[in-house]
Amino acid sequence: MFALGVSDHVMIAHSFADPFFGPAQRLHGATYAVDLEVRTAALGPHEVVMDIGAMRDLLRAVLAELDYRNLDEHAAFEDRLSTTERVAEHVANRAAERLARLPPGAAPVPGSSVRVVVRESPVAYASFERAV
Amino acid sequence: MFALGVSDHVMIAHSFADPFFGPAQRLHGATYAVDLEVRTAALGPHEVVMDIGAMRDLLRAVLAELDYRNLDEHAAFEDRLSTTERVAEHVANRAAERLARLPPGAAPVPGSSVRVVVRESPVAYASFERAV
Amino acid sequence: MFALGVSDHVMIAHSFADPFFGPAQRLHGATYAVDLEVRTAALGPHEVVMDIGAMRDLLRAVLAELDYRNLDEHAAFEDRLSTTERVAEHVANRAAERLARLPPGAAPVPGSSVRVVVRESPVAYASFERAV
Amino acid sequence: MFALGVSDHVMIAHSFADPFFGPAQRLHGATYAVDLEVRTAALGPHEVVMDIGAMRDLLRAVLAELDYRNLDEHAAFEDRLSTTERVAEHVANRAAERLARLPPGAAPVPGSSVRVVVRESPVAYASFERAV
Amino acid sequence: MFALGVSDHVMIAHSFADPFFGPAQRLHGATYAVDLEVRTAALGPHEVVMDIGAMRDLLRAVLAELDYRNLDEHAAFEDRLSTTERVAEHVANRAAERLARLPPGAAPVPGSSVRVVVRESPVAYASFERAV
Amino acid sequence: MFALGVSDHVMIAHSFADPFFGPAQRLHGATYAVDLEVRTAALGPHEVVMDIGAMRDLLRAVLAELDYRNLDEHAAFEDRLSTTERVAEHVANRAAERLARLPPGAAPVPGSSVRVVVRESPVAYASFERAV
Repeated sequence: MFALGVSDHVMIAHSFADPFFGPAQRLHGATYAVDLEVRTAALGPHEVVMDIGAMRDLLRAVLAELDYRNLDEHAAFEDRLSTTERVAEHVANRAAERLARLPPGAAPVPGSSVRVVVRESPVAYASFERAV
Repeated sequence: MFALGVSDHVMIAHSFADPFFGPAQRLHGATYAVDLEVRTAALGPHEVVMDIGAMRDLLRAVLAELDYRNLDEHAAFEDRLSTTERVAEHVANRAAERLARLPPGAAPVPGSSVRVVVRESPVAYASFERAV
Repeated sequence: MFALGVSDHVMIAHSFADPFFGPAQRLHGATYAVDLEVRTAALGPHEVVMDIGAMRDLLRAVLAELDYRNLDEHAAFEDRLSTTERVAEHVANRAAERLARLPPGAAPVPGSSVRVVVRESPVAYASFERAV
Repeated sequence: MFALGVSDHVMIAHSFADPFFGPAQRLHGATYAVDLEVRTAALGPHEVVMDIGAMRDLLRAVLAELDYRNLDEHAAFEDRLSTTERVAEHVANRAAERLARLPPGAAPVPGSSVRVVVRESPVAYASFERAV
Repeated sequence: MFALGVSDHVMIAHSFADPFFGPAQRLHGATYAVDLEVRTAALGPHEVVMDIGAMRDLLRAVLAELDYRNLDEHAAFEDRLSTTERVAEHVANRAAERLARLPPGAAPVPGSSVRVVVRESPVAYASFERAV
Repeated sequence: MFALGVSDHVMIAHSFADPFFGPAQRLHGATYAVDLEVRTAALGPHEVVMDIGAMRDLLRAVLAELDYRNLDEHAAFEDRLSTTERVAEHVANRAAERLARLPPGAAPVPGSSVRVVVRESPVAYASFERAV
């Protein structure tokens, strides 16, 4: 089993309108350091999981929709809280959609999966993984 | 698959009474940087694996029993060496017990598992994972 | 020359009402990982710069005033932008005030200085240093 | 499930003779920070996955064959590119061979697997895992 | 005293034609993780040392001249070895030149200095600092 | 101004017989991650601060005297507590002695200084600097 991972980050504002979250009910924010990992059983014709530059661009494109935004007003979180778990899920889903649309020569071999880790602070992270 | 992870650390003394361990037979010590990860197939009603503050408190409570201690004299290691592997297993077991005792609204959804990573130095770590 | 450093973090929202800042004019946020360093020419009677637990508590007290807040509405940034440089300056000033008020046995020896480093992302940080 | 991991690094030169790789077709190089992880269902007689000093020596021996080398001229990459994925695979294969040759008392218990993570920069890594 | 720092990296090949360097006489390479820090006594009109985006672009422009290159054939190292110290010096000199050419509104206030840290592996780095 | 830095670590036990230290009066321990930095105004004949392999060996030799030891019984701390500040001072002093004894071709140029940073946990460190 092979994997390839790339890293980037976003800076967002949000709040959690649920008393469960205590002080995080207030408007605050986060730097999310994001790792995107693609896992495949085999390498493609160029002996890589996929082009690493293309993978960094793909992650940037997904994150650009969130960067410097207030997630309380973001379409992706209209019907859900932007918890770190949900942000990881959102990034993984968007990344999987983009990976699935890549032409055969550029995409990972069939059967790949993705894992997204979102680190919100030096002491906390959430992750989500799914098939592509 | 979702996961949520938190980090903390302890500072302990210990020794390994087995010639297999060479210089580590002498009384020495370690700072253990500990990650606790909880994995679940789905999020709970608050759209998180569990409350991250509660999870940090849970890890602290487990680690407080070890912190600033000589593990050679600790009840948890009476019948076993406090190798990094055993420390990871101990922390995972204690965390799983505490997670299993949480009330339904506060606990991860049924079927969760835990993974504990114990980093003993910049170049070495051990981990243990199990079902909750 | 001795130094002692401790680390903590805060999660805040803010925006920069100045076209100079491009997309950071929008409401966004940050996790600020903060290092507080105290530098002294000599150690005190207990052979430390100061009690490390007291220093962590001091940094936490300073950061608690910012944590889970929108800095656009914070009294400390009424007449200034909450740029990372200004946040570092604010934390250093507040820390220096608290250090100056410590009783002789608990404070660093006279002539100490502080340096605060505020890391806003994996690729950017600001710092500020001053005398206590 | 237990795991034990150790870290080391190598500094190599290489190039990728395939237009797919853009500027990486030119002769360049990398510092590869390498993690070797051994996973086992149970600990051995000494309550560890294996001796951590022996594991660091094993990883060093595998990496020494690559260190300060131009991989374009290395026997291990005669018929393949030395992409980060291939380097991870090579290190895992060599480590697995060496683990399989250890005497019973020194080897991990039967049924173990290895995972090698090769970090090529602060924003990119590849990994490979296989049975021992 | 304020400082602002940004990070980036390059991947290069080189060799050291001097028996002093042992195995590093062979063609090898490195990933250099580079921090550029600008220090000033005061902030500019926008309450920052300088625009952080402009500073990241400036560092990228300096590093682009080295990236994916064999430094043995690079004009900047024709008359000197590309030791990590020399690479730090080169990056600091080029960065200082570019900072000195910035228009008044975009440049740090007069009297600033730069420090460049070049990390070549998890266990080694070199740095160089100078006035702008 | 140039600097060269290398990293290593030690694992020690100790206790602080002074009520000032609260729970750290108990026998405990630490992994100390140690950075040794040598600063010089100019490079030597080989265009480096000093040979990096020799510098790593020097740091290892200094740390080997502490590794896997109980510092309560160590000759270096007979008349002083082994606080992190004192450990940094001890390592810097021993490193400076060894640097001063190097033959002219191997030593840093005259006028160099050393800085030692000792990281005791993810949230705390101490440092000491002095002339060679």
